[in-house]
Amino acid sequence: LNHMTDHRPLNALGEAGIIELIQQRAAIRLPPCVRKGIGDDCAVLETDAETALLVTMDTLIEGIHFTDQTLSPEALGWKALAVNVSDITAMGGTPKTAFLSIGLKPETEVNFLESFMAGFNGLARRTGVVLAGGDTVESPSFAVVTIALLGNCPKERVVYRSGARVGDDIWVTGRLGDAAAGLFLLQGNLSPVPQKYEALILWQQKPMPPFELGRALGQYGLAHAMIDVSDGIAKDLGHICQESGVGAILQGSSIPLSDPLIELGKEVQKDPFQWALHGGEDYQLLFTASPTEEQRILSLSAKMWGGPAIKIGTIIQGSSIWLQTANGRNRLDSPGFLHFSK
Amino acid sequence: LNHMTDHRPLNALGEAGIIELIQQRAAIRLPPCVRKGIGDDCAVLETDAETALLVTMDTLIEGIHFTDQTLSPEALGWKALAVNVSDITAMGGTPKTAFLSIGLKPETEVNFLESFMAGFNGLARRTGVVLAGGDTVESPSFAVVTIALLGNCPKERVVYRSGARVGDDIWVTGRLGDAAAGLFLLQGNLSPVPQKYEALILWQQKPMPPFELGRALGQYGLAHAMIDVSDGIAKDLGHICQESGVGAILQGSSIPLSDPLIELGKEVQKDPFQWALHGGEDYQLLFTASPTEEQRILSLSAKMWGGPAIKIGTIIQGSSIWLQTANGRNRLDSPGFLHFSK
Repeated sequence: LNHMTDHRPLNALGEAGIIELIQQRAAIRLPPCVRKGIGDDCAVLETDAETALLVTMDTLIEGIHFTDQTLSPEALGWKALAVNVSDITAMGGTPKTAFLSIGLKPETEVNFLESFMAGFNGLARRTGVVLAGGDTVESPSFAVVTIALLGNCPKERVVYRSGARVGDDIWVTGRLGDAAAGLFLLQGNLSPVPQKYEALILWQQKPMPPFELGRALGQYGLAHAMIDVSDGIAKDLGHICQESGVGAILQGSSIPLSDPLIELGKEVQKDPFQWALHGGEDYQLLFTASPTEEQRILSLSAKMWGGPAIKIGTIIQGSSIWLQTANGRNRLDSPGFLHFSK
Repeated sequence: LNHMTDHRPLNALGEAGIIELIQQRAAIRLPPCVRKGIGDDCAVLETDAETALLVTMDTLIEGIHFTDQTLSPEALGWKALAVNVSDITAMGGTPKTAFLSIGLKPETEVNFLESFMAGFNGLARRTGVVLAGGDTVESPSFAVVTIALLGNCPKERVVYRSGARVGDDIWVTGRLGDAAAGLFLLQGNLSPVPQKYEALILWQQKPMPPFELGRALGQYGLAHAMIDVSDGIAKDLGHICQESGVGAILQGSSIPLSDPLIELGKEVQKDPFQWALHGGEDYQLLFTASPTEEQRILSLSAKMWGGPAIKIGTIIQGSSIWLQTANGRNRLDSPGFLHFSK
């Protein structure tokens, strides 16, 4: 097949296929200073004998990742940074310097940019991130924001997706599905939105990655494998299992669902489990650890995160992910959120 | 003024005003590990005692920076990397690891991405750059490409815009205006385009930054101040003068113009000097150096670049930039290419 004549549309490949294509075409032998390239939450580069440099980059595009209905300019500034902080956190690193490329229409009002920066700075100050550069460009129509975030980590403390071991507990740092339910509300599916669901909307708009806990889990060597929950726990656990060559079993009754999520599910007749398993954008940490570390993890998460991490399953042999419920054990599909597929 | 009520459009600020706004809003005290934040070709971060990490990020947006008439997918891949390589080069650094965020419509053909990667890899292999990560996203309409590029440099050899000294010679590494004239041709202003103008089009589509020479000029301590010519030499020399607190005088007769550029100017009755001074996208190096280093610079540029660097002026006291021609000495305006202004 001469690739120059491949007239298939990109959505025929799907996001995974596109990444694979880029990875294959770019595949020259990685120099030793690149410990990890494409295929984890961050790239891991060696800078000196002790420290690894972590690099991640994420783009948010108006009309795909957000609309003016779902994110205010301030929430956009916060969230564009949050999704990158989440990636550094998921490797056990400390976020440090951000680079912002922002494309806006020339007729965009100055207060849009002011509000965007207020949101960005709100999270930057809390996480100790410094804006060190970037690019401002004109966009012909929709807004587009790319942030590259650099962080660091003691070299031997970087937590990869590939370290899960059979027998590990599977942990998650907080309630799942809130962000997806918040999106459901912001898209106008329930109007007016009762006050009691504000927490769901807040987590969609201004998620707060557990950045201190992520670093501590790496620093104390507690997490064997870690990833941030961006595509839904089913798909993200799939990445850990695939990279680690293991399977997993999730206890349905342990999946943490918030009260507003459960209540909203009843009100609109949606299964809150679907939001929790497949909704995505949780920006919580999903990690595996030895069962002997349970007490240390619980006390660390209380101290560093303000809420208990929750044990939701076990790493097993094989390559499948199972969901154990009162109705039995079922294989868990992982649709997640797929770009480039309708 | 309550900034939340600033309803002016962004193009009232202009690109410089927008960058200033972002810089001011983000202005917390930079930690010592950030040697240079916003305001040079790259950010300069300290990683260890000897080495500086250079970081740059540039975005190309369809409809603003290119169209399918001006850049093939392959040229887009090349150029998106080239503009970043140029930034690292202009600090005296060595480009190392790239992060690519690409947003494409789902119906884009696979061969677009294949060709894009072929162009990207063509320059990556020549410059030793490794693709280490990024993001692939769906775009609702136009294509958008952001590349973040990391490089390194011995800490004491980083060349800033701010180092120009009164009495320095001003040098440029190659012919100016070719890229702008190439754009003029690609926009359909002369049809059909005679073969003799191919070099102009090539420099618009696949510019080759003098990356080995830039590194050598830093390494041997020859360049006092350096910048890449992206916005036109008038504007870019303006940055050096402003950051260094100096003025400059350019010798009009020394500005290097290519034969095709001169010939095209005659054919379409355009002044080639305007392309050379204000056209932009040259991705040549503009630097200042002590007059005593003339011979070393000439031999280094012959060895590392294949063409002689050209002496085009002198750094003087003051803050103005003058153009000396047969008609006398005139103050040089610097419109350059302004985003966010029509």
